[in-house]
Amino acid sequence: MEPINKIPVAILGATGMVGQRFVQLLARHPWFKISALASSERSAGKTYQDACHWLLEGNIPAEISKMVIQPVQPTLDAKIVFSALPASVAGKVEPTFADAGYAVCSNASAFRYEEDVPVIIPEINHDHTALLSAQWKKRGWKGTLVTSPNCTTTGIALPLKPLHEAFGINKVFVVTMQAVSGAGYPGISFLDIEDNVIPFIGGEEQKIETETQLLLGKMEGNLRLPANITISAQANRVSVKEGHTICLSIGFAQKPSQEEIISVLENFKGIEGTPNLPSKPKQILIVRQEEDRPQPGKDRHVNNGMSVTVGRIRTCPILDYRMVTVSHNTLRMSRSVQS
Amino acid sequence: MEPINKIPVAILGATGMVGQRFVQLLARHPWFKISALASSERSAGKTYQDACHWLLEGNIPAEISKMVIQPVQPTLDAKIVFSALPASVAGKVEPTFADAGYAVCSNASAFRYEEDVPVIIPEINHDHTALLSAQWKKRGWKGTLVTSPNCTTTGIALPLKPLHEAFGINKVFVVTMQAVSGAGYPGISFLDIEDNVIPFIGGEEQKIETETQLLLGKMEGNLRLPANITISAQANRVSVKEGHTICLSIGFAQKPSQEEIISVLENFKGIEGTPNLPSKPKQILIVRQEEDRPQPGKDRHVNNGMSVTVGRIRTCPILDYRMVTVSHNTLRMSRSVQS
Amino acid sequence: MEPINKIPVAILGATGMVGQRFVQLLARHPWFKISALASSERSAGKTYQDACHWLLEGNIPAEISKMVIQPVQPTLDAKIVFSALPASVAGKVEPTFADAGYAVCSNASAFRYEEDVPVIIPEINHDHTALLSAQWKKRGWKGTLVTSPNCTTTGIALPLKPLHEAFGINKVFVVTMQAVSGAGYPGISFLDIEDNVIPFIGGEEQKIETETQLLLGKMEGNLRLPANITISAQANRVSVKEGHTICLSIGFAQKPSQEEIISVLENFKGIEGTPNLPSKPKQILIVRQEEDRPQPGKDRHVNNGMSVTVGRIRTCPILDYRMVTVSHNTLRMSRSVQS
Amino acid sequence: MEPINKIPVAILGATGMVGQRFVQLLARHPWFKISALASSERSAGKTYQDACHWLLEGNIPAEISKMVIQPVQPTLDAKIVFSALPASVAGKVEPTFADAGYAVCSNASAFRYEEDVPVIIPEINHDHTALLSAQWKKRGWKGTLVTSPNCTTTGIALPLKPLHEAFGINKVFVVTMQAVSGAGYPGISFLDIEDNVIPFIGGEEQKIETETQLLLGKMEGNLRLPANITISAQANRVSVKEGHTICLSIGFAQKPSQEEIISVLENFKGIEGTPNLPSKPKQILIVRQEEDRPQPGKDRHVNNGMSVTVGRIRTCPILDYRMVTVSHNTLRMSRSVQS
Repeated sequence: MEPINKIPVAILGATGMVGQRFVQLLARHPWFKISALASSERSAGKTYQDACHWLLEGNIPAEISKMVIQPVQPTLDAKIVFSALPASVAGKVEPTFADAGYAVCSNASAFRYEEDVPVIIPEINHDHTALLSAQWKKRGWKGTLVTSPNCTTTGIALPLKPLHEAFGINKVFVVTMQAVSGAGYPGISFLDIEDNVIPFIGGEEQKIETETQLLLGKMEGNLRLPANITISAQANRVSVKEGHTICLSIGFAQKPSQEEIISVLENFKGIEGTPNLPSKPKQILIVRQEEDRPQPGKDRHVNNGMSVTVGRIRTCPILDYRMVTVSHNTLRMSRSVQS
Repeated sequence: MEPINKIPVAILGATGMVGQRFVQLLARHPWFKISALASSERSAGKTYQDACHWLLEGNIPAEISKMVIQPVQPTLDAKIVFSALPASVAGKVEPTFADAGYAVCSNASAFRYEEDVPVIIPEINHDHTALLSAQWKKRGWKGTLVTSPNCTTTGIALPLKPLHEAFGINKVFVVTMQAVSGAGYPGISFLDIEDNVIPFIGGEEQKIETETQLLLGKMEGNLRLPANITISAQANRVSVKEGHTICLSIGFAQKPSQEEIISVLENFKGIEGTPNLPSKPKQILIVRQEEDRPQPGKDRHVNNGMSVTVGRIRTCPILDYRMVTVSHNTLRMSRSVQS
Repeated sequence: MEPINKIPVAILGATGMVGQRFVQLLARHPWFKISALASSERSAGKTYQDACHWLLEGNIPAEISKMVIQPVQPTLDAKIVFSALPASVAGKVEPTFADAGYAVCSNASAFRYEEDVPVIIPEINHDHTALLSAQWKKRGWKGTLVTSPNCTTTGIALPLKPLHEAFGINKVFVVTMQAVSGAGYPGISFLDIEDNVIPFIGGEEQKIETETQLLLGKMEGNLRLPANITISAQANRVSVKEGHTICLSIGFAQKPSQEEIISVLENFKGIEGTPNLPSKPKQILIVRQEEDRPQPGKDRHVNNGMSVTVGRIRTCPILDYRMVTVSHNTLRMSRSVQS
Repeated sequence: MEPINKIPVAILGATGMVGQRFVQLLARHPWFKISALASSERSAGKTYQDACHWLLEGNIPAEISKMVIQPVQPTLDAKIVFSALPASVAGKVEPTFADAGYAVCSNASAFRYEEDVPVIIPEINHDHTALLSAQWKKRGWKGTLVTSPNCTTTGIALPLKPLHEAFGINKVFVVTMQAVSGAGYPGISFLDIEDNVIPFIGGEEQKIETETQLLLGKMEGNLRLPANITISAQANRVSVKEGHTICLSIGFAQKPSQEEIISVLENFKGIEGTPNLPSKPKQILIVRQEEDRPQPGKDRHVNNGMSVTVGRIRTCPILDYRMVTVSHNTLRMSRSVQS
């Protein structure tokens, strides 16, 4: 059943929190085969199991645990590299990989706001890969660089997309309650977040506001026009391990009925031409009718964490509708692949 | 130093969570003396220490622990009764006390929305006690009934009051992250809230929207005119023990500068004629300049939990200003006294 | 692949915490088919989804959610009943089922200490079902009653069994750190256990001491001789959702080497004649060599929660060896079946 | 009321977790005046408020916040230095201070096990300062070095001392459930300890076993004879912020009655000649009779965290008595002063 030739992929920053998720998910991927792991100089030369403080449930996949970690240099035996590097490192290193011919899929924010770099969630804007022709022209790389959005933006942009298509969104209030795993590992001290809320996450509000506009933007030829939506974001850290909870209030160009909203969300299959990726969930957006859902503790793992759950859809006295979403912040990593 | 005659007060619902706070705070109060404790039939006849699962740090005040709990009937030896009864019981019982001549200060919501019943936070609307003349007329009671607002409304109405006075508020977005102790005891199961957010609290959003309008309302003679402010509230429960965190976005009639907002908040001394109550904090509203404050874990206990802390004051792309407040949900119980 | 005739089974107390685990596990069981759900009068007549506050991840199995709950009476269409009733109810109800011909598998403690009622963990004492002949004689029931042990005892008796067989155990110190889910639902209030340890669980220490002796006891004909082991147990509740952690210190008749202990644990396949039950894990006891394992957060789910993990095996200055075990307290419910 | 001349004291490692406690407690101390703060090179030259991520409730004491941090060199203007340095640094630096004439009171473990260095809890072994004459002889220092024990040992040695005096202890089983703050700041990641138990703390078990023997040891002239007690310790980290909970099982030379144990604990006033230190609690050891106490969440702050609470005193099937203690791990820092 296995394809004769799986595509060899490398993971940059393989020992960190996001890197571990890449390992876990790619180790059983039907299209890809992990051919190289790379990490900082401190880890290079060690086996993965020796270098990695494994944070996920269960054990390191057996075939990966003995792999020797390599330095982060564009000499890895792979066609695609998935980058879980911190933004500061990514800014220097990712272009060297793209230049050397790799298809770089980056989880870092370093290039996310460049005009010629697509931020992709396949179901809502796979067509933004059209930016790559501009990228080739501008950068002269043999390879490419595409990025995935901030983990919080995903739980906002995914449900907003079909609503924006159907009814036109012009304003969105966003207040997030974000899981601790979003800050990486070791990340946040127990002493700081236990029995507490931290109403600030550095740079996050700006990321949410900007990335949502990019993700919901339209291509005009090879040009990406950000969506003309005013977004006000307030980001909070709460003592939850995984799963971001987000309160939204939305203003529409044409105010839909509640039934129309539910129908549009439940029937969303991804925009036209959405590729049938292996991790794509059967139901992209799940609407719960119970008055107290969604909850990260109960909804984060639905469809392997790939669906976003929406609930408490009700009118708003200021804008049009309020609702709450829950999405998994480390499992729902939009995997963009070169077409 | 002690006044020769402290006023004898009774506590209704003395064994519950709020009742225990009443006991703790009134036991050392310079004006009042706890003369009676009353609770449900199951507890009546027992000593307080036998009937009460004490939840607060430290021990039951020694002079209270051996007091015998009485039934909730208007035959208690007291002039004032502080009611921590559940709303369903309060609706039946509190009028019998008011009718019998007691001054009833209720923490319950049963009568909070009646036209002739003041909801009081002394610093912002002690003048609403003028409603009592209408109450006497309408109800024919020998005593009176005043109420304190929902614990969440306090952290909203207190900072909004001086801003409304100064600049006129017309719209407020509210998203709360509320502590578990707000649900009483035993309240919320560990299994429900640990590593979770519950984006729903029954009736809470309506309470916040309505009570804020009442608290910020103006008296015209003996009539209370609710403030003409549109409020959109979203209430969430988070795994914090004490201290509600609230994200606000505010629209003003005249947009002030950030400095003006800070100055108005820091200089708020209560409205004209605010009585110099023993628990009134020196500084009612504290403004923090750090980018990650206020936090319930660090700010809830400031000035014995009687101040509200405000931070992250910044502009909003949709309305005018965003900010975050933290207030203590069981210590900041607005104590309204008969004038 | 499905057997033509699955055995119809009923669940008593189906809406509670343990009852839900029965539902979850039996809904996909290769031998059994849930044919009836029974619960208290308050729930009887409702569909399972209406009566049940579902606590587990994911949804109620679809084919179960619409089943109508019946009263707890021995008229259920089933051959086997799994009882998740509270001990007080179980004491009255379970005999009526056994008398009516059902095979009752009880999770309650009501009959656990009766001389003619086996407490079973199949891998270590399935042979105790020989007690049933005495039960038939004494009780005159057409059916039978077998019980499973307290959730904490399982994490003690399972690893002790092969060590006792091999080297003879005479003393065991036990200190437990037990998960909150062991107290059922709603169980323990967040306000009681968050940021706290409760060093007391009613009746638990006695249960651990007695049940371990019963489980490790030997059959002599139809008589069960409890193991002659002195056990000192101290039970604590900690703020963990699932998974009991237990510190043991063990005194042996013949002190083994550390290697012998590890070898005996890792090679334990169950006592002779252990039936090859569908949920039996490939590896019953897992030994971790890392200095900081086992941990409930990392080891509770191994092999679907059916294995017990042992670690930190080291000598003890007072008895012979110290070690730590972790077991899942609601998934590892020993299922005893009628032979 | 203030003494004319408070003793000037310096704090080494002033910005860390323990250092902050020193600042908080010494800022209001009746005998001492903080005259200097010292910390690593990264902090030296900054004001305390700029260098310090303040973790305690409330604000930095006003008179301290603007003090400029100095390098950790024996040129500080102080007579006594309180050292909250990490063990690795303390080993190099503390001798240079003692040599220069300072009285060094160290919280670090670097010299705790040296024969000529007293480990002091004033109430139980202030007489061990007699070791200092050996220290002067051996080291030739102009000053002195005394240490305080590990935070966990305190909750063990304090209650054991009067019992050992009265009845002779020969064996003690110890299982700890330790608070996260014991690991310093940032210390333990939320992702590691939330919903988890870590049954391992590096070096802790050895410290507990050795230090308890030292603390309960007897002076023979200028020689310290460790107590001849066999101790078996198992150390666990639990998700509690402050307050260590410890399960003990104790074997006595002469088995006392339960009443005798309670009486001896409650009447303990410190050994003969215990100085009347300002922080010494009125009641050193508090015995709770409730079946579920002590609990860190309820008992850690009693008497400003200076008392140890003991409960669940009951017989043990293996040794003689079991009991549970709770002590505050950062407030109960035994302050040893030069006599």
